[in-house]
Amino acid sequence: MNYSDYFNFEVVKNSNKSNARAGIFKTPHGIIETPIFMPVGTNSAVKMMTNEQVLNCGAQIILANSYHMYLRAGTERVKKAGGLHGWMNFHKPILTDSGGFQVFSLSKLRKITPEGIYFQDPKNGSKHFISPEISMKIQEDLGADIIMAFDECSPYPCDYKQAKKALDTTNMWLERCFEAHKNYNQALFPIVQGAFFDDLRIESAKFVSQFDTPGYAIGGVSVGEPTDIKNHITEITAPLLPFNKPRYLMGVGTPVDLINGIKYGVDMFDCVLPTRNARHGTFFTYEGNKIIKNKCFEDDFTPLEEKCNCYTCRNHTKAYIRHLYKTQEATAATLLSIHNIHFLLNLVKDLRNSIMEGNFEEYSNRLIEGFKINS
Amino acid sequence: MNYSDYFNFEVVKNSNKSNARAGIFKTPHGIIETPIFMPVGTNSAVKMMTNEQVLNCGAQIILANSYHMYLRAGTERVKKAGGLHGWMNFHKPILTDSGGFQVFSLSKLRKITPEGIYFQDPKNGSKHFISPEISMKIQEDLGADIIMAFDECSPYPCDYKQAKKALDTTNMWLERCFEAHKNYNQALFPIVQGAFFDDLRIESAKFVSQFDTPGYAIGGVSVGEPTDIKNHITEITAPLLPFNKPRYLMGVGTPVDLINGIKYGVDMFDCVLPTRNARHGTFFTYEGNKIIKNKCFEDDFTPLEEKCNCYTCRNHTKAYIRHLYKTQEATAATLLSIHNIHFLLNLVKDLRNSIMEGNFEEYSNRLIEGFKINS
Repeated sequence: MNYSDYFNFEVVKNSNKSNARAGIFKTPHGIIETPIFMPVGTNSAVKMMTNEQVLNCGAQIILANSYHMYLRAGTERVKKAGGLHGWMNFHKPILTDSGGFQVFSLSKLRKITPEGIYFQDPKNGSKHFISPEISMKIQEDLGADIIMAFDECSPYPCDYKQAKKALDTTNMWLERCFEAHKNYNQALFPIVQGAFFDDLRIESAKFVSQFDTPGYAIGGVSVGEPTDIKNHITEITAPLLPFNKPRYLMGVGTPVDLINGIKYGVDMFDCVLPTRNARHGTFFTYEGNKIIKNKCFEDDFTPLEEKCNCYTCRNHTKAYIRHLYKTQEATAATLLSIHNIHFLLNLVKDLRNSIMEGNFEEYSNRLIEGFKINS
Repeated sequence: MNYSDYFNFEVVKNSNKSNARAGIFKTPHGIIETPIFMPVGTNSAVKMMTNEQVLNCGAQIILANSYHMYLRAGTERVKKAGGLHGWMNFHKPILTDSGGFQVFSLSKLRKITPEGIYFQDPKNGSKHFISPEISMKIQEDLGADIIMAFDECSPYPCDYKQAKKALDTTNMWLERCFEAHKNYNQALFPIVQGAFFDDLRIESAKFVSQFDTPGYAIGGVSVGEPTDIKNHITEITAPLLPFNKPRYLMGVGTPVDLINGIKYGVDMFDCVLPTRNARHGTFFTYEGNKIIKNKCFEDDFTPLEEKCNCYTCRNHTKAYIRHLYKTQEATAATLLSIHNIHFLLNLVKDLRNSIMEGNFEEYSNRLIEGFKINS
């Protein structure tokens, strides 16, 4: 057995004016049409939503966080339920991160060693250790279609020496991840690091490309850096990754970030933004982000976005959702989450169609002009 | 025009061993098969749920609170949206209460006069006045199929003199409500009051029965009194109301309360309990209430209730929902709300079937034995 029994990626169309491409990614739980956005289900549920609602938004793949599943649900328990697919009763592709980013973010509660990361659970002080091998074991128990390498993410800003050291650790850990991981029905994606230094990013992209695996990720962006730096790093990194494999830009992003990522040759995205924004009353439109509690929506009996076909926009008005939001009805956050998730999924679908039709650049430039109206 | 153009109620079967009956209630927005439970959408949304989820639970009619709609949404705004049906985009029957109970509950912030009730909004101190006439106007703007008389509810406990005085006010206000209300496409239900005094309840039931209207309600129960007192008052009051009209027991209740109410001849119920319980992690089963966070459910890969066919029970396990609840994922409250609402709707449907088949008493006694297991 090898990966090709379970995974296959094909670029079905690529732009001749940019690196944008449309692909088909075959996984054990189904086909993903790329470029794709992956809704995040941190604790094995997309916040405020049921699986049915997530699927009705057009989700083809979702993400769950290993760190939260390990500490809060218990990976043994999830394994007993048949892995995340059985546990959640979600039978489309699932991706898990390695837990590295969450553990790294604990700053004061963790210690990075060459062996792995020692950390304390911020909720109860219990002590834990995750190494590349343990991360692989956790992710094997969780059973997602796509699993991520255990890496060390650099903060922003960060000096060269620190970034280089983190990259060396990441590379060493990557070899151990591939050594430990033997399930060919779970695709192990290595992660490009190297902070915001071009040469480190190039070194890292070359390093991860040596591994023959079903896909590759770009990590360490969306950690607080300005947009132009994020774009630059994505632009130089993505094309260095194997052309015939999907490229995943981790933790991105906004509608404009997705457009830029696609232009640079990225195929997969995830971000908590659509659901987090929804809980805070912000919704996506083709004229940029809008805030539901604004007084101008008090008597607005039109949908959140006229051109949207989501459950929320087919059924409810801004005036109604605003009232629910102002009276702290959780249904408001659900309705806004449905809209925001649907919006991003529909955006990448439309962008994919424009790639297929050969007019991605014109179409996406027009969208970006619209998004600027409210920014 | 008169009420019979819009409303009709028919008792299609009544038990010969109790006052239980099955009926069909025709309203402007559709047929309601009684006995029925009405989910409560305080702020014009059932808490934690979308309309789609409420309808998929089998809801035939829902309730919204005039008090909250008046203070928070603005009744003019709702009217502009086409009344509650347009505002919510919910096109089955809707019932609004009069606001009387909520205003009455403000205790220190309200003053009852023969003219009406002066009160302050507890959120911002703004001053308001609701009279029978104003309540009718509010409810006409909201446009529900069934609207409720503006009454004075007595607390529990309450002395005879106080109860008698409140009843006299209620009766006087009832005449003013009927005087003010002229929309025959909105059925005005009078409310029996009289606290927990048999003679006052009898007097009140006789008084309200004089009005020829599509239905009648029993109010002033579920205000903190012991169950046997609630049952006694329901038992003596319900049969005094016109046989050929639906009887609505306000603010009730638990699965056992519904069974008892039906036995005494009640046709309609509403209560915030199923959704409130859900938010606090309690779910209904045929063995009584259970608490999702209990450790015994940690590895329980069975549905909340084996005999339940709701979305939650068809798709998820106790172990999964417990994990979501413990990690404070709102999706847990949604899944539990769906289950609890479906449970009560399915319960009244099964009880209706047992009435039709002539075995309500045996069937409901068996259910009550089951509910005792966890009580």
